[in-house]
Amino acid sequence: MRLATLELNGTGTAAAVLRDETAMVVRDSAGRVAYPDVGALLAAGDAGLASARRALDDGDEQPYGPGAVRRPILAPGAIFCVGLNYRTHITEMGRELPTHPTLFSKLSRALTDPYVDIDVPVAGAACLDYEGELVAVIGTRARNVDAAEAMRHVAGLTVLNDVTMRDYQWRSPQWFAGKTWERSTPVGPAVVTLDELGDLDARELVVTVNDAERQRARLGDLVFGVTELVADISRIVTLEPGDMIATGTPGGVGDAMDPKGYLGDGDVVEVRIDGLGSIRNRINVRP
Amino acid sequence: MRLATLELNGTGTAAAVLRDETAMVVRDSAGRVAYPDVGALLAAGDAGLASARRALDDGDEQPYGPGAVRRPILAPGAIFCVGLNYRTHITEMGRELPTHPTLFSKLSRALTDPYVDIDVPVAGAACLDYEGELVAVIGTRARNVDAAEAMRHVAGLTVLNDVTMRDYQWRSPQWFAGKTWERSTPVGPAVVTLDELGDLDARELVVTVNDAERQRARLGDLVFGVTELVADISRIVTLEPGDMIATGTPGGVGDAMDPKGYLGDGDVVEVRIDGLGSIRNRINVRP
Repeated sequence: MRLATLELNGTGTAAAVLRDETAMVVRDSAGRVAYPDVGALLAAGDAGLASARRALDDGDEQPYGPGAVRRPILAPGAIFCVGLNYRTHITEMGRELPTHPTLFSKLSRALTDPYVDIDVPVAGAACLDYEGELVAVIGTRARNVDAAEAMRHVAGLTVLNDVTMRDYQWRSPQWFAGKTWERSTPVGPAVVTLDELGDLDARELVVTVNDAERQRARLGDLVFGVTELVADISRIVTLEPGDMIATGTPGGVGDAMDPKGYLGDGDVVEVRIDGLGSIRNRINVRP
Repeated sequence: MRLATLELNGTGTAAAVLRDETAMVVRDSAGRVAYPDVGALLAAGDAGLASARRALDDGDEQPYGPGAVRRPILAPGAIFCVGLNYRTHITEMGRELPTHPTLFSKLSRALTDPYVDIDVPVAGAACLDYEGELVAVIGTRARNVDAAEAMRHVAGLTVLNDVTMRDYQWRSPQWFAGKTWERSTPVGPAVVTLDELGDLDARELVVTVNDAERQRARLGDLVFGVTELVADISRIVTLEPGDMIATGTPGGVGDAMDPKGYLGDGDVVEVRIDGLGSIRNRINVRP
């Protein structure tokens, strides 16, 4: 299934399941919106997924277009990010292959929707960069799971652009200040459940800026895949439904270009992963 | 005022205001618990603080002891942490004074209560260290505030032990993996409002392990004080009521000792700041 969160006309948000080019809102037996977002649907466990399956057949059909699509999980309890996780990107940054995942985090208030403008204040726009990423979305609580069990706790996958203020990322030894700017990180458009996807390694992630290609990588180039990341994080802290793990970005970021390929006002950046769809956002620099 | 969150007997939690050695639960006009924790009280703005002031005189008096005290904000929306922020600690770690705050974050699920045992799995106990810290608690939303306005957005201060798994902190370039272990970070016992405190610079933070002193510093030794930190973070992202800013730790951590002064099973670590009280936790290493 492809699970998305829709903005309904004036009545809030709703979790929906996508069927071709339409969206079927998941409703309860009384006809009310069952879940305000995909996060709430996942938190409901098997009942949430079962109601999504039923909605595929008899849901409330809604127009589905860029203007109506919110990020699938409006406010995840945790957003884990991974740095230095594609062989090609590690090489371009001049580093050696890591022995452990490089984990950091992002606040949920840093997230934004898959097709909206990204408003960036001038103060954050000097070294503005893109990082296209695959995201794993947790479906069920995971604590101390091993690699063999890890994928059972993943509901599905989605797409994220880890928009980064490089000057803030590197003003101190910790990257967080360049990674968590207000509503700077688009994610979506849908959580695609694992049963739709099959083998991931051959799928490609592609990032374009104004339709010119900047990043392209096979997901098989990941140093630590979703399985290893879920297992590793679950040894540190409990993973909860709706948590996101952004798995890192491949080579081709603007900062590694000569001259620098930073994003400016009006630029349109798109991140696409085969089978997961794409997110596309315009940069809007404001005083 | 000193604002705390109490565990009531079998009926959940409640925000309370402390008067000498008793706690007055904040109740609404119908006699119900007004707020489940200090976070909810702060989110209610002026009305929350006014109800706390009234409870000082006519609140519901409750026994107040270590067993009944929870962390003041049960699940902050954001926990900002600062590294390398005391001149003495920067020196012992062999670094130069920074030009910008070193920000990272911690998940709310990493927090625990001010007097409980800290359960640490063996896997995280090899290089277990303490970091006593002053915490600023946000009272009102702050976005793009300058230093002159910053303190108006701070409700009060509290105490935190940024318990750190040094091996995980340093297994990659980012510290997060050593800083966000499940229920590893005690905080409390109360949020003390700024009007009770006056000048902070002369106040001391003291950390003991099994009652032997390990860290002692004047808050005036902070490189970036609360004012600068609120202003800096608010340029990046909105600060919300209940958010915490852990301001960093001074010299004397176990890792800087020779031989290493790491924490082991049964050790009791206490962090005290003049005027804010103390938190005291026993380490419980489990398989």
